[in-house]
Amino acid sequence: MGLETRWGAGFPPERWDDNRRGGTKTQVPTKQMTEAGENGRLNRLPCMNETIAALATPAAPAALAVIRVSGPRSREITELLLRKPVSWLPQKAWHRELWDAEERLDDAVLLYWQQPRSYTGEEMIEISCHGNPLLVDRILAAYFSRGARAALPGEFTQRAFLHGKLDLTQAEAIADLIHAGSLLALAAAQEMKEGRLGGKLAEARVILLELVAHAEAHLDFPEEDIDPEVGESLLRRIDRLRSELSGLAGTAPTGRLLREGIVVVLAGSPNVGKSSLFNALLRQNRAIVSPHPGTTRDTIESLCQIHGFPVRLVDTAGHRLAEHPVEAEGIRRAEEALRFAEIVIHVSTAPEPPESDNFRLPTLLPHQRYLLVANKSDLGIHAERRSQLCVSTLTGQGLEELDRRIYQEIAALAPEAVTGSAVNARQEAALRRAVAALERASDAFRSGLACELWCLELRAALQAVAEVLGAVTSEEILDEIFRRFCIGK
Amino acid sequence: MGLETRWGAGFPPERWDDNRRGGTKTQVPTKQMTEAGENGRLNRLPCMNETIAALATPAAPAALAVIRVSGPRSREITELLLRKPVSWLPQKAWHRELWDAEERLDDAVLLYWQQPRSYTGEEMIEISCHGNPLLVDRILAAYFSRGARAALPGEFTQRAFLHGKLDLTQAEAIADLIHAGSLLALAAAQEMKEGRLGGKLAEARVILLELVAHAEAHLDFPEEDIDPEVGESLLRRIDRLRSELSGLAGTAPTGRLLREGIVVVLAGSPNVGKSSLFNALLRQNRAIVSPHPGTTRDTIESLCQIHGFPVRLVDTAGHRLAEHPVEAEGIRRAEEALRFAEIVIHVSTAPEPPESDNFRLPTLLPHQRYLLVANKSDLGIHAERRSQLCVSTLTGQGLEELDRRIYQEIAALAPEAVTGSAVNARQEAALRRAVAALERASDAFRSGLACELWCLELRAALQAVAEVLGAVTSEEILDEIFRRFCIGK
Repeated sequence: MGLETRWGAGFPPERWDDNRRGGTKTQVPTKQMTEAGENGRLNRLPCMNETIAALATPAAPAALAVIRVSGPRSREITELLLRKPVSWLPQKAWHRELWDAEERLDDAVLLYWQQPRSYTGEEMIEISCHGNPLLVDRILAAYFSRGARAALPGEFTQRAFLHGKLDLTQAEAIADLIHAGSLLALAAAQEMKEGRLGGKLAEARVILLELVAHAEAHLDFPEEDIDPEVGESLLRRIDRLRSELSGLAGTAPTGRLLREGIVVVLAGSPNVGKSSLFNALLRQNRAIVSPHPGTTRDTIESLCQIHGFPVRLVDTAGHRLAEHPVEAEGIRRAEEALRFAEIVIHVSTAPEPPESDNFRLPTLLPHQRYLLVANKSDLGIHAERRSQLCVSTLTGQGLEELDRRIYQEIAALAPEAVTGSAVNARQEAALRRAVAALERASDAFRSGLACELWCLELRAALQAVAEVLGAVTSEEILDEIFRRFCIGK
Repeated sequence: MGLETRWGAGFPPERWDDNRRGGTKTQVPTKQMTEAGENGRLNRLPCMNETIAALATPAAPAALAVIRVSGPRSREITELLLRKPVSWLPQKAWHRELWDAEERLDDAVLLYWQQPRSYTGEEMIEISCHGNPLLVDRILAAYFSRGARAALPGEFTQRAFLHGKLDLTQAEAIADLIHAGSLLALAAAQEMKEGRLGGKLAEARVILLELVAHAEAHLDFPEEDIDPEVGESLLRRIDRLRSELSGLAGTAPTGRLLREGIVVVLAGSPNVGKSSLFNALLRQNRAIVSPHPGTTRDTIESLCQIHGFPVRLVDTAGHRLAEHPVEAEGIRRAEEALRFAEIVIHVSTAPEPPESDNFRLPTLLPHQRYLLVANKSDLGIHAERRSQLCVSTLTGQGLEELDRRIYQEIAALAPEAVTGSAVNARQEAALRRAVAALERASDAFRSGLACELWCLELRAALQAVAEVLGAVTSEEILDEIFRRFCIGK
């Protein structure tokens, strides 16, 4: 179900990352559109006239909890819970008691955001109450029983997108920003949220629109040949655009590593000190809060950052108990961990000769990087180990060098310097489609094929770029994007 | 180190729970006082001229995180992070980018609270940023490097107390409110936070002040005898007060159960279905977020609420593995769980005769309650089990009745109907001291002892009541109270 926007209508397209202008550059869904999605899955284009509410902070005991309410009835429903009136001045906070009929819920701070100068672009109220999850549930229940409904994951941001407050790359960047598990991931997400990628693509869109306009003008006067000089310039512009979009698509591997973390697996024989190395690396590289709740694997995994990169450090220790079935399971898990590894650190012991290490690493996949580390250097270093990287978790010897080596391997995996936003899988796929269409357009033009043909390819490229920005989108894409969000955002 | 307030000065004492009046009814600590505490423990009366900052929401990925800043330099330090100025209108929110020198941290909403009309009574700023813990750390680091310091647990509320925004019972109630794990615990905390207990004690304090004034007047004219009628009235007032304070102290057991949860342990032979009963009870009584992080025991324990009461349901299952050392450990743990139990549910099987159950319950302590439940009633009920409570986790039969029975046992444990605030251990201890002093005063008066003697006891009672309210307090008491708080409150 494509929400086609007439591509010519927005010419020249405005930058979408300009919050101040507001307006609806994206078509607001009609009732008909939203009903089309009722095939059992989340209806991702819910009627925008509903008022939604959700907890926006984690559901755990804390000093404060913040509940967000958005939609046309935000004020009206909130007033039903108040005994003392509030004059709804925009961006003004009020300290008020909330009541559910005769029951006092809490005293809270209400912050009012006027439409369209709010996060969602709608009338919004943020309620800051005592951080007790039971209390939050009661306040939410009071809203729900008065006509608000529970917000879907990401629905606040989706409404911001649908109200033209941000483009789709910026909406996606907000989810990245929340879950970023390292400083580089944070920086990349912020770049994209600032509209850096969106800006580049908006420029690409302008160029494509001009090229298409040019081609269509030619379609209207097919008897005229294209001036060779004009043709050359056209071709140059197509090729330059293709190369630029291809460059953006090429940031996808870095983006994936930044979003998901680089899996570094410690492997080796029993008793080589894998677990102490695991702990030493974690201590050195400040542990971070899990950015991917619910994705733990069947091995000991901890998150840290190495030189700003998010690293999922996996220890295959603990799988070497004496009894047979447990050991078999341990080996299976270690092998599975190795299959997912981006970097494998083979841990051995420094005082013993290399041939005494009977750990046999499975054949690595082509993209997997390998590091050999000789641990327990405090117990001496065997002559044949001298050229190897020797470390000691006891004295700390070599740990910094190990860090540096891991970072070298990371840099080899993510060759694109993180100077800007790194695209995600969805964006990459659309960009690759745009690149392929531009290649075909260029070929068709060079081969002197009919103008209709390369004009068609230019339009396909335009469509792909518009898809990244969210100017042309479908419920499936919106569902895919926004259900990754946490509720309350 | 008592912060003695001259007890006569506040006569008649104002109600402390009146936020609007502000003022400093408690002595603000001087430099000398704060230094006295430097004996290695937390300095609980830190200089109030320091600016403090802390995360006020849980440190986990979410839509929003809120950072609180309080103290005289709140605005000044915040301005160092801004590129676009803010006109600091009270209770007004601003959407601004935060910068650490050349590095853009985030775009956030800043909400300004003017002294003394803020939570702490000081200049305060609440920063609502994207809910990424790494990002929060960077913003806090920017504040710390510019002169703010990390807030101690409960320091915001402590400052509110020291600035006379609330009394000590209300400050304690705020911690209870955040950690309340059931609706009744929530209601009791809210009652106390509203100043209901504080109000009663403030009234008691007025009466005591009048009685002491009366006694002291008599001291000034020792030649005059007390009029027998006046004496009778004095005695009646002392006794009425004693009975009232004793009633308040008597709510302590209920308070303890509400704060800590009622420990209900499932015990019985292997294979009687303890674990399925455990799960069935949890399903029926909506699980809640742990109100006591870090207090899990070595048994499977889950929190739920039964008729509004917080229940810590403990399953002693899983401790019956075949191998010997594991089983021994399991039995040890089950016995330990039983020792902590308030209610023991002995689970047996309905289709089998009572004598076939070879589970031997250890001797229960006098306060422990006992319930016998025959599970698996879907497989039939043995004739001798007819009079017992038979349940089936398969069909759901009897589960509601079990719930009701558990509630009956809870009600027997917490006989004080929860109509108001239930005092905590600190409050109970001080109240019991007041009651004892009043008893001695009454006895001394009745025995015709010298006025000095019963006057001394009345003053002791006054001191104890003032301690509950926090009018007379020490660093030790403040430390004890506020370190139970989460950081950011």
